Amino acid sequence: MRHPAKSDKFSFGLWTVGWQAVDPFGDATRPALDPWEYATKLAELGAYGITFHDNDVFPFDASDSERDEIVGKLKDATEAAGLVIPMVTTNTFTHPIFKDGGLTNNDRAIRRFGLKKILRNVDLAASLGAEVFVMWGGREGAEYDSSKDLNAAFERYKEGLDAVAGYIKEQGYDLRIGLEPKPNEPRGDIFLPTVGHALGLIAELEHGDIVGLNPETGHEQMAGLNYTHGIAQALNAGKLFHIDLNGQSGIKYDQDKSFGHGDLSSAFFTVDLLENGFPGGGPRYTGPRHFDFKPTRTEGMEGVWEAAAANMEMYLMLAEKAKAFRADPYTQELMAAASIPELAEPTMAEGESYADLLASDDIDPEAAGEREYHYVELYHNAMRHLIG
Amino acid sequence: MRHPAKSDKFSFGLWTVGWQAVDPFGDATRPALDPWEYATKLAELGAYGITFHDNDVFPFDASDSERDEIVGKLKDATEAAGLVIPMVTTNTFTHPIFKDGGLTNNDRAIRRFGLKKILRNVDLAASLGAEVFVMWGGREGAEYDSSKDLNAAFERYKEGLDAVAGYIKEQGYDLRIGLEPKPNEPRGDIFLPTVGHALGLIAELEHGDIVGLNPETGHEQMAGLNYTHGIAQALNAGKLFHIDLNGQSGIKYDQDKSFGHGDLSSAFFTVDLLENGFPGGGPRYTGPRHFDFKPTRTEGMEGVWEAAAANMEMYLMLAEKAKAFRADPYTQELMAAASIPELAEPTMAEGESYADLLASDDIDPEAAGEREYHYVELYHNAMRHLIG
Amino acid sequence: MRHPAKSDKFSFGLWTVGWQAVDPFGDATRPALDPWEYATKLAELGAYGITFHDNDVFPFDASDSERDEIVGKLKDATEAAGLVIPMVTTNTFTHPIFKDGGLTNNDRAIRRFGLKKILRNVDLAASLGAEVFVMWGGREGAEYDSSKDLNAAFERYKEGLDAVAGYIKEQGYDLRIGLEPKPNEPRGDIFLPTVGHALGLIAELEHGDIVGLNPETGHEQMAGLNYTHGIAQALNAGKLFHIDLNGQSGIKYDQDKSFGHGDLSSAFFTVDLLENGFPGGGPRYTGPRHFDFKPTRTEGMEGVWEAAAANMEMYLMLAEKAKAFRADPYTQELMAAASIPELAEPTMAEGESYADLLASDDIDPEAAGEREYHYVELYHNAMRHLIG
Amino acid sequence: MRHPAKSDKFSFGLWTVGWQAVDPFGDATRPALDPWEYATKLAELGAYGITFHDNDVFPFDASDSERDEIVGKLKDATEAAGLVIPMVTTNTFTHPIFKDGGLTNNDRAIRRFGLKKILRNVDLAASLGAEVFVMWGGREGAEYDSSKDLNAAFERYKEGLDAVAGYIKEQGYDLRIGLEPKPNEPRGDIFLPTVGHALGLIAELEHGDIVGLNPETGHEQMAGLNYTHGIAQALNAGKLFHIDLNGQSGIKYDQDKSFGHGDLSSAFFTVDLLENGFPGGGPRYTGPRHFDFKPTRTEGMEGVWEAAAANMEMYLMLAEKAKAFRADPYTQELMAAASIPELAEPTMAEGESYADLLASDDIDPEAAGEREYHYVELYHNAMRHLIG
Repeated sequence: MRHPAKSDKFSFGLWTVGWQAVDPFGDATRPALDPWEYATKLAELGAYGITFHDNDVFPFDASDSERDEIVGKLKDATEAAGLVIPMVTTNTFTHPIFKDGGLTNNDRAIRRFGLKKILRNVDLAASLGAEVFVMWGGREGAEYDSSKDLNAAFERYKEGLDAVAGYIKEQGYDLRIGLEPKPNEPRGDIFLPTVGHALGLIAELEHGDIVGLNPETGHEQMAGLNYTHGIAQALNAGKLFHIDLNGQSGIKYDQDKSFGHGDLSSAFFTVDLLENGFPGGGPRYTGPRHFDFKPTRTEGMEGVWEAAAANMEMYLMLAEKAKAFRADPYTQELMAAASIPELAEPTMAEGESYADLLASDDIDPEAAGEREYHYVELYHNAMRHLIG
Repeated sequence: MRHPAKSDKFSFGLWTVGWQAVDPFGDATRPALDPWEYATKLAELGAYGITFHDNDVFPFDASDSERDEIVGKLKDATEAAGLVIPMVTTNTFTHPIFKDGGLTNNDRAIRRFGLKKILRNVDLAASLGAEVFVMWGGREGAEYDSSKDLNAAFERYKEGLDAVAGYIKEQGYDLRIGLEPKPNEPRGDIFLPTVGHALGLIAELEHGDIVGLNPETGHEQMAGLNYTHGIAQALNAGKLFHIDLNGQSGIKYDQDKSFGHGDLSSAFFTVDLLENGFPGGGPRYTGPRHFDFKPTRTEGMEGVWEAAAANMEMYLMLAEKAKAFRADPYTQELMAAASIPELAEPTMAEGESYADLLASDDIDPEAAGEREYHYVELYHNAMRHLIG
Repeated sequence: MRHPAKSDKFSFGLWTVGWQAVDPFGDATRPALDPWEYATKLAELGAYGITFHDNDVFPFDASDSERDEIVGKLKDATEAAGLVIPMVTTNTFTHPIFKDGGLTNNDRAIRRFGLKKILRNVDLAASLGAEVFVMWGGREGAEYDSSKDLNAAFERYKEGLDAVAGYIKEQGYDLRIGLEPKPNEPRGDIFLPTVGHALGLIAELEHGDIVGLNPETGHEQMAGLNYTHGIAQALNAGKLFHIDLNGQSGIKYDQDKSFGHGDLSSAFFTVDLLENGFPGGGPRYTGPRHFDFKPTRTEGMEGVWEAAAANMEMYLMLAEKAKAFRADPYTQELMAAASIPELAEPTMAEGESYADLLASDDIDPEAAGEREYHYVELYHNAMRHLIG
Repeated sequence: MRHPAKSDKFSFGLWTVGWQAVDPFGDATRPALDPWEYATKLAELGAYGITFHDNDVFPFDASDSERDEIVGKLKDATEAAGLVIPMVTTNTFTHPIFKDGGLTNNDRAIRRFGLKKILRNVDLAASLGAEVFVMWGGREGAEYDSSKDLNAAFERYKEGLDAVAGYIKEQGYDLRIGLEPKPNEPRGDIFLPTVGHALGLIAELEHGDIVGLNPETGHEQMAGLNYTHGIAQALNAGKLFHIDLNGQSGIKYDQDKSFGHGDLSSAFFTVDLLENGFPGGGPRYTGPRHFDFKPTRTEGMEGVWEAAAANMEMYLMLAEKAKAFRADPYTQELMAAASIPELAEPTMAEGESYADLLASDDIDPEAAGEREYHYVELYHNAMRHLIG
């Protein structure tokens, strides 16, 4: 397997390799390095970019000068390493002030505090050349059904997103917002639990044109949903602005394993879509292949780097297999037998009226009910390529 | 507990009490009655309306005259019983022809067949005075990730929905479409798995103004989602057109138990929202309280009617408790302590500029992180009312 | 609702009210009090007992004298408050040394370290008069299927449990072990994921006679299982030694809400079983009603005590309702109609041979298939009592 | 990939390829063939055996002579095709009489009917040379917590199993019973929901020596459990008597996809265990590789056979990869680095006393907490072999 190249556009959050492995039942098992150390090492492994939350780099209570100094060092290190910073995001979840959320906190003063923290970080993102500003509202939600005026919560969420998007426009930044849905954890029920809910909310925004999605593999799978379907709907809506790849083993706590180390065949079809596009063409995703994973708590620092590298190697292995799967004439034959290309044809003919449609001949339903699709064989042929 | 009144707007699908209890592992345990028998009995129990799929009433292959005759009898019986027919829907899932879906079947001829079946039923719905036309795309989906051109699938879904909505407009019908999401079963992954995904797709439609949601309690819960949050987002978007109430015990096969016989406290807060609205006001749902349940397979015909009645009695019990919960001064006090009314206040002041916001004073984050919300006590007070 | 009495046997872990609310995405929102402060306050609220892990009371690296001093203070405070200490447990999950488990760590030296830590704590438990020694093997498990010799893991688990049980016997302590199953979190797959798996393993032990279960409400529900069924099977096997009551809203991360604040109707039937026993008699649970919950992170110290009190008030409310449900003549009538008492009758007559059975008359299967059970109405009558 | 050989011991239930694809929302999409037609075709595809429920072969109400005639024809066909019949099972779930269960039905007369049906089928199983008699109690359970005396239910379940096992012994049959757990569907909560619960109940039986497990991949996964862990615990207990392989995509309705078409990497480690055994040796499974799958409803008869063949081809592909993974020196090196072989060493030395243990030197916990396990790299190396 070839070494990752810059053209693969692999990026990593600093919080991924930098996670010290505190979990709800355990203390840190790993040291904290300086941010630039992670960046340098990721570049060696083959990454083309790094991403971060503000407080991955400087403390919550950093003064302006501390902040500038640390960010400056990180910037120097990334440049020295030949890395880009395609995405920046804000931490509105770790500090106790955000225990009931940032943009939808019942407490207005806290919402204002949260919004200001985000806006300051938008400036930072723009100054570093980021193209996407991710917003994960992990604390926007509730454990208790009585604790929120839900209509007001959605109003405030929209106000907050429009405020950020409006600020981006006012400042003339070349930035788009990527919302990151998640069904639960750390809140019992998070607002915008899935790709769909985010798409629905975006449609209600004033500045929705620069607001899209940053779907995470494991987050959709925590709701039992098909991740590839989710990013496909986002692509179809022109809203796939960024992507978080990782591994999750079913509906349980957020595992953040390395990409492909959860549902492997689903990962294969995700890569197939990202690398090969829809069978009949259509919108493509061209942004970073961003890994949002956490090296499992058992791992030491050696394991951290092995886990980081595994993401990229996995992606490259799957991409190669997906190319071969699509190119296989037997695949093409089975896709034709399954009428897959026919789904791209409009159901009604161009210019066909309802009267024409209703008057058109029916097929024989009994015969149509017996037709073969060969879906199992087609899928199995993908497995032959994946495993073979 | 008082008997249900017409003004409670309780409606039932004929397929609910009419379910013969065939399941994946068992044969029918109950007889099939004629449609009008169900209608008459439901009226006695207190329903104000009935709803149905075309093939709940007449066979898939009924001739026009058979169809007219049976529908006529049903209409007569519902009128005699003083019932309305607020909703009609189409079965595009039982017959083998639809095994790969109706509107998103890979086979264009089948898509045309499905669309025509739907359009004919739109005519029927309009002729019976229905206000909502529900579309549950239970067969629109896939078990295998390779079996669909997903972009084409969303294109066809949009085409199909716009065709139906456009037809409604062309015919001048006073009908709105209610999409019913479901994550899976009978397909491995159904398109439009949640309220959110449907909202997202509707935003892409040409005729989306008359397309909204018909969320079902159990379907959202099959994805581990909070049903009350789901209908709240639909309300906030002006898209809650109809509602399917029932009972589900967690993430598993679709149980369709009587309303409240699954997650009871969630049902309480659903009724609280439907009856009392959002604490700070906002959009309200005023349509039928429609029950989409299946009397459990162990039940005979006596049990069927007991299960039907249980839905309505449960709703009325919960409504009474929810009224008392909201009216309780201690509830009001706790809601104030939790700053719930404050969530309705915009985060930025009217006319406030970004510069003003950024220059405004910050609160002390440490103090803010320690503030009390009393969410547990507020929720517990709801439980006191529910149980007390 | 009456104040909890000592005779209600309500106990709390010190780690419950003492949880500082660190979660995977957030820092502590609450201060740490001294252990005796929690004990005193719990006594005021109505608890009869407290429980703890060793390191809830003294640090992991405490010297013997530090340990003795702190334990002594706690003992004095509990006595002064009139509390008992019915259960003690060991923390083999927080410190990084246990990141791959205690009793099933691949590293033998760590297993020995873990076993010694447990044995020392057995001594402590005995010295404090505890009756049950809980063992939650939260780190015994794996995220990766290749990382364990599974047969060896079960052998080591059995060795470890037998070592602890054998030590208890050797020392002549009046202690029994309660295993606490959990499906996942913090490990991807925990060994002994459910009540059933623990019962299965106990059956393989040499000293299994003093090893039983401590099932936790939320843990079983995290696997989508019915908690009341789980404790019923444990009771039937004579193995319900202790119980952890709390609240969980479906299959997701471990929520540890107050008892009844998750699946309310399931909590009702749990209390019904604990307070009223099986309808036809049989084994009863007479130990502490132990709450293993975590006050939600949004709560300050006032909220902590409200959440603690909510557990007890909920239990007492449910107990009262369950008494009335069982005593209701209509309930009795429905139970008879459902043939519930008949399930206690052996299927074969006393002394009946297989030949006699096979020669006995058959019933008419068609008629038997139509019989009514009225399960929905019986359940709904429980709901009438619960809500009414 | 080589053609399956008899020595691979691949067997199929007649109900798998014979499933006509009725689901809760859809009618049959495929015809019913005669039982011997399925047998003959399965032999051609490479199966070595077939299995069945009584009513897969003859009707529920077949007379003795009908039964004998049909069974005779099936026997002749299987012999002609060179097939064995390693397992037989009884249908106590399809007919309405069993709507509340067979062995745990509240109605004693129905329990007697069910037990007799099972015993008659034990005779049939023995006469056909089956080695295992599977019992899936899919209707033993409840949707409503009030509907069962749970203690009585477990008593009746034990009585029923002991009656069947006792009958086997009395008749001198060379048969063992394999219990098949399932968490839910068709009942809301099935008794014996997981491998663990069955192991726990077996330990309570009088004739438990001939009662073991028949775990199904998808059933364990419907509870979010690790199937390989489940069969490992059954093996460790000496109770893995038979095995049902298939594919499931997470916690949802029972999908019964072809083996490996659900969680692929889990299927890999299942095959790794079945083919290569535990790393340090221990109990092995040597019985049939039995596929309990259902060709997806979209498939016609061609698809049925493709789906059947896919199970075997998948197993053989995974077996080949698993052999190579284990043989790879880098795998061996990583396993050593992870201390996997060390888990087979007893934690206490032979003859070591508790006093010796407690007096032995401790390791440095801080250093031990930092050790590397390289679990991610080991798993990733498995993926390299699986995909590579």
